[in-house]
Amino acid sequence: MDARPTLQSVAERAAVSRQTVSNVLNAPHLVRPETLERVRQVIEEVGYRPHSAARQMRTRRSRVIGLRLQPTVDGINGAVLDQFLHALTEHAQVRGYRVMLFTAPDDEGEIAQYGELLDTLELDAFVLTSTHHGDPRTRWLADHEVPFVTFGRPWDPPATDGRSHAWVDVDGATGTRAAVEHLQELGHRRIAFVGWPEGSDTGDDRRRGWRRAVLASGVAAHELAAWDVGVPDSVADGADAAATLLDGPEDAAPTAFVCASDSLALGVLAATRRDAADPSVAVVGFDDTPVARAVGLTSVAQPLTEAAVRALQLLLDQLGPSPRPATDDHHVLLSPSLAVRASSVPAP
Amino acid sequence: MDARPTLQSVAERAAVSRQTVSNVLNAPHLVRPETLERVRQVIEEVGYRPHSAARQMRTRRSRVIGLRLQPTVDGINGAVLDQFLHALTEHAQVRGYRVMLFTAPDDEGEIAQYGELLDTLELDAFVLTSTHHGDPRTRWLADHEVPFVTFGRPWDPPATDGRSHAWVDVDGATGTRAAVEHLQELGHRRIAFVGWPEGSDTGDDRRRGWRRAVLASGVAAHELAAWDVGVPDSVADGADAAATLLDGPEDAAPTAFVCASDSLALGVLAATRRDAADPSVAVVGFDDTPVARAVGLTSVAQPLTEAAVRALQLLLDQLGPSPRPATDDHHVLLSPSLAVRASSVPAP
Repeated sequence: MDARPTLQSVAERAAVSRQTVSNVLNAPHLVRPETLERVRQVIEEVGYRPHSAARQMRTRRSRVIGLRLQPTVDGINGAVLDQFLHALTEHAQVRGYRVMLFTAPDDEGEIAQYGELLDTLELDAFVLTSTHHGDPRTRWLADHEVPFVTFGRPWDPPATDGRSHAWVDVDGATGTRAAVEHLQELGHRRIAFVGWPEGSDTGDDRRRGWRRAVLASGVAAHELAAWDVGVPDSVADGADAAATLLDGPEDAAPTAFVCASDSLALGVLAATRRDAADPSVAVVGFDDTPVARAVGLTSVAQPLTEAAVRALQLLLDQLGPSPRPATDDHHVLLSPSLAVRASSVPAP
Repeated sequence: MDARPTLQSVAERAAVSRQTVSNVLNAPHLVRPETLERVRQVIEEVGYRPHSAARQMRTRRSRVIGLRLQPTVDGINGAVLDQFLHALTEHAQVRGYRVMLFTAPDDEGEIAQYGELLDTLELDAFVLTSTHHGDPRTRWLADHEVPFVTFGRPWDPPATDGRSHAWVDVDGATGTRAAVEHLQELGHRRIAFVGWPEGSDTGDDRRRGWRRAVLASGVAAHELAAWDVGVPDSVADGADAAATLLDGPEDAAPTAFVCASDSLALGVLAATRRDAADPSVAVVGFDDTPVARAVGLTSVAQPLTEAAVRALQLLLDQLGPSPRPATDDHHVLLSPSLAVRASSVPAP
């Protein structure tokens, strides 16, 4: 036993629980001012350095990886992250690692959880999902020298210091481009996009693939604008969007729809046909969820098992005895595939 | 520091890793014979007692709960356990506990994981799902004095020693009875059951509720037998079963179907109608999955959040400073509800 100060020794000296010390470090607003003052004084006295400092001096790894469980929304799109979780858990276990779950209401809450999990349970690393512009989580982890990988690329421009972190992502634009080309092979030319409002990184990426592929086929940009819809991600909004797009002269209306999610695609399906055996327009969803398989919806499928395996490998590279230097090969962009089903009907 | 032998001290003395000691205890077939021999000798020499003995002497709890992640099958029915997992993780965290995941190919594999998780990560307790006849997991945990709760009742007759463990379950028979009564209110009398082959505890429970409710309405037992089908749990098998049941004189064929799962119900729907707006028979599924919501399928809904909260409470009762004695109030049977949708059509 060395005399290095630990969370435990700080807690004992300040006569508070380990949880309280963790709160002082990670969520000070939860701690009464006089306690905050006392614990901070002890931290200074003993020279306690939380998180990364403690981690670097540890010789034993916990072999536990933390993952924030995203809230279930409509249960359709959430299936994707649950599948990723299953694959990650299985493959981590084969490599001798466990997955510990936590929840948080937002990025700041997630960061507070990092601190607490590092302090109290000595997690080795984190897997982050749902990356986005201005994501404060990756900076916090990098600053604290905590190994991590994101499932989702960083959407911000590269940092000026050239630092970059490990990530795995699926190329959404390639998926929607493949969807458009598939529909073009079926004879469609007027192919609409039902996605989310601009500003969501993943959604804009999927829109980009559709847009480029349709423009490449000779459609004029002004025509395209009329077929581009951004709505909230729900079955009802998908149905409304389709109804609006189809409400015009028949020779200008889209004959096919590429959608940013299976929820939206399901709405489009419901609005445009009586059932899969009586099609009027072609529909392609995104994520190949159980719902898509159940109703015969063609959908872009993410290689989730491969994403989990690659993410895990990028983590293990950082956790090994001689961590590998950060290079471009710690960025993995996977291509999705197309699961073709009954909703792929030829152009009229 | 007391001198009580630990996994760590055994590992050091035998000059092997902690993992190897754990394997010796839990998965000896993985260890080379000479290593096995040496480690066992050290265990005897120092008097190391794994699992429960170590646990009882520990003063600090890890506040970590283990849960085996079930393999994803068709992604439809798996949604139920994923929802339970989400609710358990959220509510455990509020109470200061974390959920750690693991996987296993079968009961024996799950038991080996218990041992390893107790040894290496000092988990406090386990939540078990998918209980069944002759379940060896609960006996192992009870024998090793490890706190646990099952989501799923024990299906074996009570032990002769009167021991019983904490469990939460949802009353499947009540759910299918409610489904039958709902269909009877819509004027149906010939109500078939499409379930799994006899011998699955959960499936037999659901069949029982249907059977009793139909018999109670005056249908003769010999009539009933013709409407009772047991098939594997898939959309295709559900469709085949419905086609077979409907292939006879029209005045004897069922006009409504109660199914043991949404997968089966989806198959029945596909086989019996062109779409939800053009119904020919009524269909009720089980589990109220996202697919049911998406296609307008009436379905029996399990109160999964309540199940998770109650299961957690039963665990915390065992983990508190003065564990509560085992009484009948550590058995919780919840009633499901019926989510009524377009597939609830009146009798012709």
